[in-house]
Amino acid sequence: MQQAQTRFTISTRGQALYEFTDEVADWLAGTGSDTGLVTLLCRHTSASLLINENAAPAVQRDLLRWMAQAAPEGDMYEHDSEGPDDMPAHIRTMLTGASLSVPVAGGRMLLGTWQGLYLAEHRRAPHRREIVAHFIGE
Amino acid sequence: MQQAQTRFTISTRGQALYEFTDEVADWLAGTGSDTGLVTLLCRHTSASLLINENAAPAVQRDLLRWMAQAAPEGDMYEHDSEGPDDMPAHIRTMLTGASLSVPVAGGRMLLGTWQGLYLAEHRRAPHRREIVAHFIGE
Amino acid sequence: MQQAQTRFTISTRGQALYEFTDEVADWLAGTGSDTGLVTLLCRHTSASLLINENAAPAVQRDLLRWMAQAAPEGDMYEHDSEGPDDMPAHIRTMLTGASLSVPVAGGRMLLGTWQGLYLAEHRRAPHRREIVAHFIGE
Repeated sequence: MQQAQTRFTISTRGQALYEFTDEVADWLAGTGSDTGLVTLLCRHTSASLLINENAAPAVQRDLLRWMAQAAPEGDMYEHDSEGPDDMPAHIRTMLTGASLSVPVAGGRMLLGTWQGLYLAEHRRAPHRREIVAHFIGE
Repeated sequence: MQQAQTRFTISTRGQALYEFTDEVADWLAGTGSDTGLVTLLCRHTSASLLINENAAPAVQRDLLRWMAQAAPEGDMYEHDSEGPDDMPAHIRTMLTGASLSVPVAGGRMLLGTWQGLYLAEHRRAPHRREIVAHFIGE
Repeated sequence: MQQAQTRFTISTRGQALYEFTDEVADWLAGTGSDTGLVTLLCRHTSASLLINENAAPAVQRDLLRWMAQAAPEGDMYEHDSEGPDDMPAHIRTMLTGASLSVPVAGGRMLLGTWQGLYLAEHRRAPHRREIVAHFIGE
């Protein structure tokens, strides 16, 4: 049993889903691992992680539109000192979550055919987002 | 320290919560493990995993009704090529998540008294859903 | 590679977010661990876990207000035998989740600068909530 750990930085350019499946897969391949568990943590409170369909880009746009309607910008928030998109970003982060885990076999993450790993950026301005990846296995 | 990994297939018959706590518990018992961590991944983007109450079936129906209202079918989605229940299914999957982890002690998952493991099927048609289970421990 | 496991009990006094980052950090320091993975499980179906901003208390109040509006109390639920705040609590638990994982390096959880670990209590009455913490690493 061994461990490996790294950090990925994703430069975002506004509210969108940024796929980083290949970055994690490449890092995992470089560790020479066969079987185990990859865990990812997004180190921010206005960006989050999710697994969703990576085939049709319209799916990603619909997911974002849903979040924009479910947690809209507006003057209903007590916390408004960091801009109108800040509190909705915290809510959308709460709904999608900061961490997730993916089992590994044969050196590959066992994602389904249409599953991709996404960073969800919930702020309008560009940000540099850091994700920790941790592997335990052999 | 050791690992074990398996896959569960659940045949679904429409939108509902399908409990599979016993299947995971039985597999875990068969590994002869005592202490560790079980991680589950649903390999789909229109079905998801959740832990919720397994006592009152009405709770499960209310959870599904809430999701049906929060992410309803309708003509508001850009992605509509796979049927009216497809895009709502992706949204409901985003809200509930694809992976979760449960610590183990004494050979048993440390779920609370009323907690059960559920596959949430978000599509109307029958599907075969695959869940990967991964154990690390001893 | 080694494991450690403990349970935290949090006494809640109504619907609020209860931070327990320091409790986990102190326990982790006591294990003498350096690198690994901490996984947390909330053993209840009407309270949940989340990572969110620990700087501005107004953020936490806005998160709670959002949940109160998204899953309100009312007579629309089939399951109403445990009080008007019970079914909304199950829904809010579904949205935020029961488990999460945080990588560890240098003996510390790799949370971001503004990230805190919270128990979200969704019931009005006081409760004693139990959280299992599990560490794998070295």
